[in-house]
Amino acid sequence: MKIEFHSIGIIHTPFDNLEGMPIQPSSAIGVKGTVELVKDLTPALDDLNEFSHIYLLYFFHKSTSLRLRVSPYLENKEHGLFATRAPNRPNPIGLSVVKLITIENNLLHIENVDILNGTPLLDIKPYVMQMEPTDALQIGWLEKHNTKLHSKMSDGRFVDN
Amino acid sequence: MKIEFHSIGIIHTPFDNLEGMPIQPSSAIGVKGTVELVKDLTPALDDLNEFSHIYLLYFFHKSTSLRLRVSPYLENKEHGLFATRAPNRPNPIGLSVVKLITIENNLLHIENVDILNGTPLLDIKPYVMQMEPTDALQIGWLEKHNTKLHSKMSDGRFVDN
Repeated sequence: MKIEFHSIGIIHTPFDNLEGMPIQPSSAIGVKGTVELVKDLTPALDDLNEFSHIYLLYFFHKSTSLRLRVSPYLENKEHGLFATRAPNRPNPIGLSVVKLITIENNLLHIENVDILNGTPLLDIKPYVMQMEPTDALQIGWLEKHNTKLHSKMSDGRFVDN
Repeated sequence: MKIEFHSIGIIHTPFDNLEGMPIQPSSAIGVKGTVELVKDLTPALDDLNEFSHIYLLYFFHKSTSLRLRVSPYLENKEHGLFATRAPNRPNPIGLSVVKLITIENNLLHIENVDILNGTPLLDIKPYVMQMEPTDALQIGWLEKHNTKLHSKMSDGRFVDN
């Protein structure tokens, strides 16, 4: 079953290269960017400015190859792809929570951005902690890297060219 | 710019109809389901069983029409589409955090499911609270419905047919 989506905007960030990028929004605190939504969709932004954080769903447009097992940035041990956020996914969809600073017409000014410059936008959703799980979390292989999660930067290992 | 994705599995749940469904995972506590991943991708599940919660990204396959402004389940006032989780999106991608109970080969047993039976799966990502924002949250129009978020059910208002 094939599913056709289309880019609904472009995410502008300071990161023109995958190498040296923060690997998660929490290691990108203060990094500013903008989301340029296609103008026709501007009415769909009404009331979004009342939310402090939003999910961005986007297309990992630089990810060309599927890898079922990957060595993530935090360690050299291999893990199943779905136990990581590596971009080499069967459907290369990226997901980040960013801080929403302000909205001007079809431009969203955002902060804590861990996204490559020029990334095609797929969707915007409000971030609502009340909809997240409240029971105890287990985070598998990431547990031992807990203190590193906020500072680790990428080293380009998922770059295909 | 067109982007072609494909279904990588099917989400099985008790909800054959949109009406009466929980509108969020937090109002679906204890509801069980399974994710049937295409068999070729089974190696990509390695180590995922160590995580207690996962993100499911899926295709809102019953959503046929784009609406730029919607009245969400919690109130009859209209809001911009992107300030809601309504399915009538330019790219109808759904996002839920569910509890991962166990994995048998290509079958994931999950709980707290707010997804329609037969929904095509797009991606699975580990849920890691450490990657979520830690600063103060504002949740706009949802704030006044805070106590209702865990119990409200859908009334089929986004059903096209």
